[in-house]
Amino acid sequence: MKINLICIGDELLIGQVINTNASWIGQFLNQFGFNINCTFTIGDSHQEIYSTLKIAFESADLVITTGGLGPTRDDISKKAIADYFGLGMTFHQQTWDRILDLFTKRNIPISEQHREQCLMPDGAEVLENGMGTAPGLWLEKQGKHCIMLPGVPYEMQHLMERHVRSGLISKFQSDEYFEHTFHTVGTGETVIADHIQDFEDSLGDKAGIAYLPGTGQVRIRISQRGGLKVTFENNRDKLGKLIQQWTYGENGESLESVVGKLLKENGLSLVLAESCTGGLISHKITSIPGSSAYFKGAAITYSNEHKMQVLGVKSETLKQYGAVSEQTVTEMVRGALDHLEGDIAAAVSGIAGPDGGSEEKPVGTIWIAVGNKQQIKTISFLYMKDRERNIQYAAVQALNMIRKFLIAVYLK
Amino acid sequence: MKINLICIGDELLIGQVINTNASWIGQFLNQFGFNINCTFTIGDSHQEIYSTLKIAFESADLVITTGGLGPTRDDISKKAIADYFGLGMTFHQQTWDRILDLFTKRNIPISEQHREQCLMPDGAEVLENGMGTAPGLWLEKQGKHCIMLPGVPYEMQHLMERHVRSGLISKFQSDEYFEHTFHTVGTGETVIADHIQDFEDSLGDKAGIAYLPGTGQVRIRISQRGGLKVTFENNRDKLGKLIQQWTYGENGESLESVVGKLLKENGLSLVLAESCTGGLISHKITSIPGSSAYFKGAAITYSNEHKMQVLGVKSETLKQYGAVSEQTVTEMVRGALDHLEGDIAAAVSGIAGPDGGSEEKPVGTIWIAVGNKQQIKTISFLYMKDRERNIQYAAVQALNMIRKFLIAVYLK
Repeated sequence: MKINLICIGDELLIGQVINTNASWIGQFLNQFGFNINCTFTIGDSHQEIYSTLKIAFESADLVITTGGLGPTRDDISKKAIADYFGLGMTFHQQTWDRILDLFTKRNIPISEQHREQCLMPDGAEVLENGMGTAPGLWLEKQGKHCIMLPGVPYEMQHLMERHVRSGLISKFQSDEYFEHTFHTVGTGETVIADHIQDFEDSLGDKAGIAYLPGTGQVRIRISQRGGLKVTFENNRDKLGKLIQQWTYGENGESLESVVGKLLKENGLSLVLAESCTGGLISHKITSIPGSSAYFKGAAITYSNEHKMQVLGVKSETLKQYGAVSEQTVTEMVRGALDHLEGDIAAAVSGIAGPDGGSEEKPVGTIWIAVGNKQQIKTISFLYMKDRERNIQYAAVQALNMIRKFLIAVYLK
Repeated sequence: MKINLICIGDELLIGQVINTNASWIGQFLNQFGFNINCTFTIGDSHQEIYSTLKIAFESADLVITTGGLGPTRDDISKKAIADYFGLGMTFHQQTWDRILDLFTKRNIPISEQHREQCLMPDGAEVLENGMGTAPGLWLEKQGKHCIMLPGVPYEMQHLMERHVRSGLISKFQSDEYFEHTFHTVGTGETVIADHIQDFEDSLGDKAGIAYLPGTGQVRIRISQRGGLKVTFENNRDKLGKLIQQWTYGENGESLESVVGKLLKENGLSLVLAESCTGGLISHKITSIPGSSAYFKGAAITYSNEHKMQVLGVKSETLKQYGAVSEQTVTEMVRGALDHLEGDIAAAVSGIAGPDGGSEEKPVGTIWIAVGNKQQIKTISFLYMKDRERNIQYAAVQALNMIRKFLIAVYLK
């Protein structure tokens, strides 16, 4: 079953808003084995929507649209689909009652534009919007389906989860669909692709591998449409063994959540000493709800004075080896363990760029140390991209080092 | 002049990659007064590209494509445009020499697939790619233009800046185009829109206002196509005065870069004490190259113990008022000034959620203090969204408070 997506909104074309709806909907549909054939991004114009609907329905039986609903845009989406199918519009009393009730509670006067929102193409199933005013709709005519949703991301997602999901599964899902994503860190897409080449070639045409690279990370997704569940599970486990050395998590887990789990399960606390990463690792760790159970705090020692005053790094060490060195990050970790009082500490020092590099230590040189009272491990990287990516990469590698240290030392 | 954009890539349709290229290109073209008419996102298939080119050229004279170039994809984009225009392919020696040289330097064996990358449609202008192997192309035939670029964002951007920009301006720019963006913080889009309603209504049809909301910030862009430069400048200045109370920067400046400039110009150093923001403010500050000139370091005092040990916050204060209180952030700022030794300090404490809230202090309660040795200012907010947005909002408000404090105290 072919699906086309139409994203309506001038703000998408002028580039002021990134089209996260298209990506979210693509992933959402994938969960049930559906794929988007083509996405059209167009402006807020009846003519554009009408002509794009025509094109879209030529190559798909289901067309999903976002945007063009809601009081300030004259509901152009609904008029366009009504015109396309040759339908009249009917006033939907239930929606009007809901909006009136909502506004009365908040003491806001209701306007005529909201009356327009209640007009629906004849025969459309109204998808009540609990997150906003504009309802969505599902229209079926002559074997063609059109689902129209608001453009505001959390409203669209709410309607997809609440109303569309069950409709799609009951109406369209024939084959079963299986998928599993492995999250890897520490090597690049090409190395992994080479490593699993024979395995990938051995998969039938029901199954496939998709690669999604990130900064220092690669997600590997195996999927299978139809066929036996046990076949999929065997292949999934084979793949899992093949890439085990790089895998840190699966199906949406972030490195920071995996690190958090390991700390929590072992009753350990973490403190950080960050220099070039400037707070990014702390920010990632604390983005996980409940992280206060295992993260106590950090010292962002951006200047050499702070490295000395807060962490007790020796001035001779800084003079002899420099801030970006194995010796300095080792003293930073010891200082964090002593002064910030955590069970585990990690320290990062590097040259993010664009300035600060030298022949001996070019931009992108990173030193990381991780340890506890008994032992400290160090590692260095050279990641020669731009400032933003050097910082992101250093944070990812530091989190991975903490993860590997916890596994090696605390998981027997 | 109408422009359509075709983004080619299976990974875009399955939603694993968000289409940042479309947004970047939209903004890039806007700078010269060009608008994208429609964006098509399609899969890696010769058939798809060919049929979408047909549709795209029906409603545009310039079609830009991203993706479908590069060694692992059989250069389907180039074959499709060659087929569309009925052209043969020619081997481009210069590109081969460049790739060979690149690979020889890195001691990587060159493969036959790279030979394919050097085949170009007859008559195409080759756009050399300094950031990767796949060259772009600009093809002009029968009044239609096709620009094909790699899908990797920094490679595409490199080619747009390096080769496409000048070509677009010289070939297509007729009317002059003026634009200016004001960056505001501290109020919402609706308030600003109401405030400038009369001014916006007074603009002719050559000029317009665009709003881009963010977390705690709104960008206001005024643009004018054709007409007199002095008319634009007058309108721009009028708008500037109208929204002055909320404006912190313009034309791409971030809050953190504005704060950095203010610190640098006044020879001041900044230290931070972060609790709920967990390192995000430090990360934003250090994302600016050269920030080591004014940012010394921070204490991420995520636990109450750290607030006491590192910053000297009194245990009685924490007992009596709690971590999220005016009293605690004030002591955090004093502690930062004394122990971290900066000219200016800022502290943030809040309840990011989803847990930790109470009737008295719900999730989203934020306290911020900013000060120097002579005075400390405090403010509180209630921003009741999800954890991620509460943290982002707190960081934005803290940066704005630092900015306002610097202006009030150091700029006479």
